[in-house]
Amino acid sequence: MSQGIYLDNNATTRVDPEVLQEMLPLFTEHFGNPSSMHGFGAAVGGKIEWARKQVQALLGAAHDSEIVFTSGGTESDNTAILSALEAYPKKREIITSVVEHPGVLALCEYLEKKRGYTVHRIPVDNRGNLDMEAYRAALSDRVAIVSIMWANNETGTIFPVEELARMAKEVGAVFHTDAVQSVGKIPMKLADSAIDMLSLSGHKLHAPKGIGALYVKRGLRFRPMLRGGHQERSRRAGTENAPAIVGLGAAAQLALVHMGEENTRVKALRDKLEQAILAAVPSCFVTGNPDDRLPNTCNIAFEYIEGEAILLLLNEAGIAASSGSACTSGSLEPSHVMRAMGVPYTAAHGATRFSLSRDTTEEEIDRVIAVVPGIIAKLRSLSPYWQQEAGRPKEFAPVYS
Amino acid sequence: MSQGIYLDNNATTRVDPEVLQEMLPLFTEHFGNPSSMHGFGAAVGGKIEWARKQVQALLGAAHDSEIVFTSGGTESDNTAILSALEAYPKKREIITSVVEHPGVLALCEYLEKKRGYTVHRIPVDNRGNLDMEAYRAALSDRVAIVSIMWANNETGTIFPVEELARMAKEVGAVFHTDAVQSVGKIPMKLADSAIDMLSLSGHKLHAPKGIGALYVKRGLRFRPMLRGGHQERSRRAGTENAPAIVGLGAAAQLALVHMGEENTRVKALRDKLEQAILAAVPSCFVTGNPDDRLPNTCNIAFEYIEGEAILLLLNEAGIAASSGSACTSGSLEPSHVMRAMGVPYTAAHGATRFSLSRDTTEEEIDRVIAVVPGIIAKLRSLSPYWQQEAGRPKEFAPVYS
Repeated sequence: MSQGIYLDNNATTRVDPEVLQEMLPLFTEHFGNPSSMHGFGAAVGGKIEWARKQVQALLGAAHDSEIVFTSGGTESDNTAILSALEAYPKKREIITSVVEHPGVLALCEYLEKKRGYTVHRIPVDNRGNLDMEAYRAALSDRVAIVSIMWANNETGTIFPVEELARMAKEVGAVFHTDAVQSVGKIPMKLADSAIDMLSLSGHKLHAPKGIGALYVKRGLRFRPMLRGGHQERSRRAGTENAPAIVGLGAAAQLALVHMGEENTRVKALRDKLEQAILAAVPSCFVTGNPDDRLPNTCNIAFEYIEGEAILLLLNEAGIAASSGSACTSGSLEPSHVMRAMGVPYTAAHGATRFSLSRDTTEEEIDRVIAVVPGIIAKLRSLSPYWQQEAGRPKEFAPVYS
Repeated sequence: MSQGIYLDNNATTRVDPEVLQEMLPLFTEHFGNPSSMHGFGAAVGGKIEWARKQVQALLGAAHDSEIVFTSGGTESDNTAILSALEAYPKKREIITSVVEHPGVLALCEYLEKKRGYTVHRIPVDNRGNLDMEAYRAALSDRVAIVSIMWANNETGTIFPVEELARMAKEVGAVFHTDAVQSVGKIPMKLADSAIDMLSLSGHKLHAPKGIGALYVKRGLRFRPMLRGGHQERSRRAGTENAPAIVGLGAAAQLALVHMGEENTRVKALRDKLEQAILAAVPSCFVTGNPDDRLPNTCNIAFEYIEGEAILLLLNEAGIAASSGSACTSGSLEPSHVMRAMGVPYTAAHGATRFSLSRDTTEEEIDRVIAVVPGIIAKLRSLSPYWQQEAGRPKEFAPVYS
């Protein structure tokens, strides 16, 4: 970690060196095509099935055959939604939330505009919690699929997916959850769950980029998106990405090992960071639901300054963080998540996400705590908004305290 | 290569150790999300653009922005066809060939059966050459896309893609070619070509599995298949697979370096292998067009014995080869390519593909030459068909000589 302090683990994580070690032989030694009939390929097939069992264990799935390897979270999300629409062609409605990842939202927008589907986007309150009444009202037997994330990537707010899934089943809708941010951070037991499909992404849990999985509950009607060879039991065509699959398996195994103690340690570091910043910096507040959050995520809105400027000065201090999600960066608008929660522009622009991982050390957190207040004060000293607004009574922030 | 002699490079290749070296820092050091606004991500973006230029150079494309990174050949094939159908919704016909890869054929079958498209599958003659009259007859302004491979994966037979593309343009159809087997083996200059889209796969040219590209000529109407974030100029959503992209770039650079001398050396080894086998083994012949073939591919049909048994004994001798394509193995039927060429069952079942690469040495070829005749003789001594048929006059084989 010579480059500095990496607190952008919700964007992507470092590949665990143990994971990389498991992958290496697959590149240059056991490099065969697992579908081939010779020794170069045969060894690979066994490795892939080992990896599938590790992912099954991490998800608490009943069968390893429920795990379909894909190229990542976006492919898994797209596949899940398109599968349900094709499997239930007479159902022309989709339910999702306003705070989903673009891998769901962009597809839904396309399906609405170009294919005539009705999309219900369930709103959230100012803590990022889903409007359950709106959800209940949108459910009907016209709904082919509900796709609602397990935990939000920007705030870490956790949705009650189990309850959402049970309600979806009552009207006969398929329930899919984008769990890219929660797999490896929250214990799961899909075998006892009403969740039909679940997306995960390797590079969010110390496996490499370019690999992910879609959980498909046994018995669910499924239609593939990629068509070609019979790989993955004809559910995802294309030569198996064996090194990355093995990497995902190794990462799943490690995540399960670290789920308890490590997550407790990471949560304590996150809480320390957050409390220290809230105590030292005026006019800032935690976005999302602080009581039901991923253990590694902290999103703080610093009022009257720009998130990009904060990131710039953090980067100069050797600290990597994020404003909004990486997938939507480059935009000058506050993120769709902040807007959906009704965070005022003067605060949403300064929303900064610190996302930790098991690589994060206490020394790093202490360093961030030491640096952040000075950065915020410096930027505010240059901000005309801060000069005008700092003295006024807060209308919004107290909701979060 | 401790495991033996690998002559299954059309199924997949060994990752070049130089390629792997280029990739390694992207896993554990420069692991940032290239869309992120900090040092961990910024370094990665530059590497991806470097890789894009290497692929551009290998293809002789006019612009690096014409290269879209995907998860592999199947995704590229699927994306190309679905893009054209969506971009030209009133055109309801597709032209392809009977000998395509499943990444094209399976999608076309689905589009025909489930979406009501008309699919023209152009036949081939007994040398694997395309029926140009049938192609001409199928072309019309009702055709949205022609998808015909550059070279066949089983026989190596090369199709006249430039001529096919020009003919497609005359009727306003998009022309796509699955060039997974020919990229890196045949010089290309897409800047001067009528080809609109081209699929390539990393793991066929010593880059890793799980990465590929789709060439999309500037100005072509394009619709993405994967929807989500704005990666790849909104043409392929999902976090960039940075290590594998850099690996593909490095592999493209090496392929261009080795295109001349190495390919000449590989072709000489292939020819030596083929001539020695044809001279030493009775009742066998080369399938496909021996005069217009990939330099690395040799597919020999050994009459009256089973390909699987040949592969088994080859494997015992430490030699990896293939019958049919790996994507369709597990089937007891002869491959669709052999059937399309009208190779009789008694020969098609014994079709064995030896596919070389720049890793192949002369010592290895000499070893294969020494071993193959004995294996064939042994299997024939056990074959009741051979006992019955060996003496009869050949009706089919002479066509190939």
